[in-house]
Amino acid sequence: MEALISSGPTQFNNSINIQRIEDDLYRLAQFGYNPEDKGVYRQGLTPIDMEARQWVKKQFEANGLQTHIDGVGNVCGRYIPKDASQEIIDAPAILIGSHLDSVPAGGMFDGTLGVIAGLECVRRIQELNLPIKRPIEIIGTSEEEGRFGGMLGAQALTGNLTPDWLESAKDPNGDYLKDALTDCGFDVHQALHARRDPESIRAFLELHIEQGPVLEAENKPVGVVDGISGVFKWLIKFVGKADHAGTAPMKMRSDAFMGVADFAHELSRIIDEEGSEYTRLTIGRVELKPGFAHTIPGEAHFTLVGRDMDNEIMKQVSHACHKVLSAIGRKHNLKFEHEQLSWLEPRHFSDQVVSVLEKNAQQANLDYLRMPSGAGHDCQFFADMVPTGLIFVKSVGGISHAPDEWSHWDDIEKASNLLLKTIIDLAEN
Amino acid sequence: MEALISSGPTQFNNSINIQRIEDDLYRLAQFGYNPEDKGVYRQGLTPIDMEARQWVKKQFEANGLQTHIDGVGNVCGRYIPKDASQEIIDAPAILIGSHLDSVPAGGMFDGTLGVIAGLECVRRIQELNLPIKRPIEIIGTSEEEGRFGGMLGAQALTGNLTPDWLESAKDPNGDYLKDALTDCGFDVHQALHARRDPESIRAFLELHIEQGPVLEAENKPVGVVDGISGVFKWLIKFVGKADHAGTAPMKMRSDAFMGVADFAHELSRIIDEEGSEYTRLTIGRVELKPGFAHTIPGEAHFTLVGRDMDNEIMKQVSHACHKVLSAIGRKHNLKFEHEQLSWLEPRHFSDQVVSVLEKNAQQANLDYLRMPSGAGHDCQFFADMVPTGLIFVKSVGGISHAPDEWSHWDDIEKASNLLLKTIIDLAEN
Repeated sequence: MEALISSGPTQFNNSINIQRIEDDLYRLAQFGYNPEDKGVYRQGLTPIDMEARQWVKKQFEANGLQTHIDGVGNVCGRYIPKDASQEIIDAPAILIGSHLDSVPAGGMFDGTLGVIAGLECVRRIQELNLPIKRPIEIIGTSEEEGRFGGMLGAQALTGNLTPDWLESAKDPNGDYLKDALTDCGFDVHQALHARRDPESIRAFLELHIEQGPVLEAENKPVGVVDGISGVFKWLIKFVGKADHAGTAPMKMRSDAFMGVADFAHELSRIIDEEGSEYTRLTIGRVELKPGFAHTIPGEAHFTLVGRDMDNEIMKQVSHACHKVLSAIGRKHNLKFEHEQLSWLEPRHFSDQVVSVLEKNAQQANLDYLRMPSGAGHDCQFFADMVPTGLIFVKSVGGISHAPDEWSHWDDIEKASNLLLKTIIDLAEN
Repeated sequence: MEALISSGPTQFNNSINIQRIEDDLYRLAQFGYNPEDKGVYRQGLTPIDMEARQWVKKQFEANGLQTHIDGVGNVCGRYIPKDASQEIIDAPAILIGSHLDSVPAGGMFDGTLGVIAGLECVRRIQELNLPIKRPIEIIGTSEEEGRFGGMLGAQALTGNLTPDWLESAKDPNGDYLKDALTDCGFDVHQALHARRDPESIRAFLELHIEQGPVLEAENKPVGVVDGISGVFKWLIKFVGKADHAGTAPMKMRSDAFMGVADFAHELSRIIDEEGSEYTRLTIGRVELKPGFAHTIPGEAHFTLVGRDMDNEIMKQVSHACHKVLSAIGRKHNLKFEHEQLSWLEPRHFSDQVVSVLEKNAQQANLDYLRMPSGAGHDCQFFADMVPTGLIFVKSVGGISHAPDEWSHWDDIEKASNLLLKTIIDLAEN
């Protein structure tokens, strides 16, 4: 038995063809590729993004899928077996989606992998003529990376857009979303029609690179994600007194930066006392005023981003942060203000899909890790609405959003086979 | 005896006229005054600075002083008693100086007070026809506040300028010092001729507002300064790894900001263990890269400014800082680099002048504090060369370099009388 286990994961017979995924990903990466820094520049709702979507639509069509691009740019390709009964045609579909846009100077796997792996799964199902009882639809979602806030496509599909927001959303250059939609040939009024009826969806599946270091550190090729951590973002201000760094004795200072430093120093204790293994607290931006070497900082403006998988733990942690900030303010004679810019609750995926993913990973003898996702993904908007699952592939060095983003093809193969087996399981009944 | 002491300081008979100082300071504050923010805008070597200097020159002349403006803009007014012997005319002079330029949005006392108080002292000496045995010269120094690096006038007078530096010095707008000098009507080659022969100077005296909170906290109107603290300035860099704030677990991070925060947290311990009551350590500027709320800072660039009155203590403190930074770098997996931008040794004033100031303060029953200066002043360049003294006046709230900079007139009166008595003591023999 030892010998059998150590001989590696058992492949089930309907394995995907990793070479086709590799070919498609390299072709897709050409859209927006910059040979100078080897990065992909394909921000959402730009001409090159539209070109890539047209190319994906053609691949869908070449494989006999029914295609359309909806009002926000989601590219949809639906597979229904030839001669399917009306019952099958009308049955709630399996949706497989991820995004086609990239960050500036991004890599070739982020988002695209989920679309191409989905296409490969459908190709294998077609080739093997597997008996499925519902449509399978692949969706290349629109503007996930945040040009206009992010996850536009997923929000449109799940009915999370509002007319007001569509009117007012702008990118950092001040260009309006509505104008970008028009420039890409869309009618802004059609954006709200992209919404899908939850009754029409059996499950939503996403395959994505991890974009973090956990799978590599645990030496696992694949992760079965059971939820997406909640996140809160605070803008914090300490106001003390700007003073000459030479004339003001240490004990007479109201040094706003010392407030930030003392708080940062307490973060690990707050996590130890109030948090969980999934708690993250990050100070990513700090601005000091006046910001001169010889002047004691009179003001410090900084961000705090907190995450956890449990909304109650997030509350406890944020409460502890507030207490510590208040106490530090008193200690250093600083006025403390904070503004909560956002609070997104954690999303837990339904056990319906997670259990199928785990069963299939175990049957394939796959050395997977059940884990939460610290980053947001398109699938999070589906999690409240339909059974949802997310598969992670190990990221080399945990690197993403950079030209040297990489995942090994054999890890991608394992993850794609897990996706295929799970689609089949969910589609066969 | 108790009653006598508590009746307040004894005035010596030759007291200055505080009303004239007040009048002159208000008139001088008009040059560059901005009614909107009530700040004085009179940066060195600007047209308004030149207008103020011409006005001061006229005041000197109106009081019978021999005046000139040297090659860098120092306004000089020399008093020699009528019918003085050649021996008196040629005797080493008492120099009384402070600066006439201001920071942008500065106050009405910083620098100017020392010039006007010096003028008032000379006026009193003239009015009382006191028998002095050497010239007394008042100097309104040029560009002390740092448009081109600061203390230009004092450096010129003490021979600390070099032709290379005069050629290359620029202000933050990229305007050259040599062009600013030309625009103000000076010949850059004359700048080096401003140097005074140390043999021609008996002593240099400066009266300045404290610009710090110590005298107010100690409830003393006046300080007798016995030296200026040394100062070192470091530019420090921690390089870690920028990462997604959601996907990277706390223990897998190389968070450059946590390095800065941990170091800031150690500053008070370093001072307790290696420093003195005069040690100051300040982190005034911090820049994080990339500086996004949702990204773990990959780089932190920050300044450290250290001060003490003892060069050996400065060395110990800086050595401890280096050790702590290295250890923190190892702990957080950060690369640590530092560059020493400057190291100025402490200046101790000769006891010759300090003892006269103390004697006179005690005789006047003045409740003074003997103290070091944490900030730099024009007089520091004279301290290595000639007997030097510095008198501080209490700053209300320790505030300076701001429109609400203030010192009480009765404190200024006490300080000016101490200056007058000390000039007389040094000039009478």
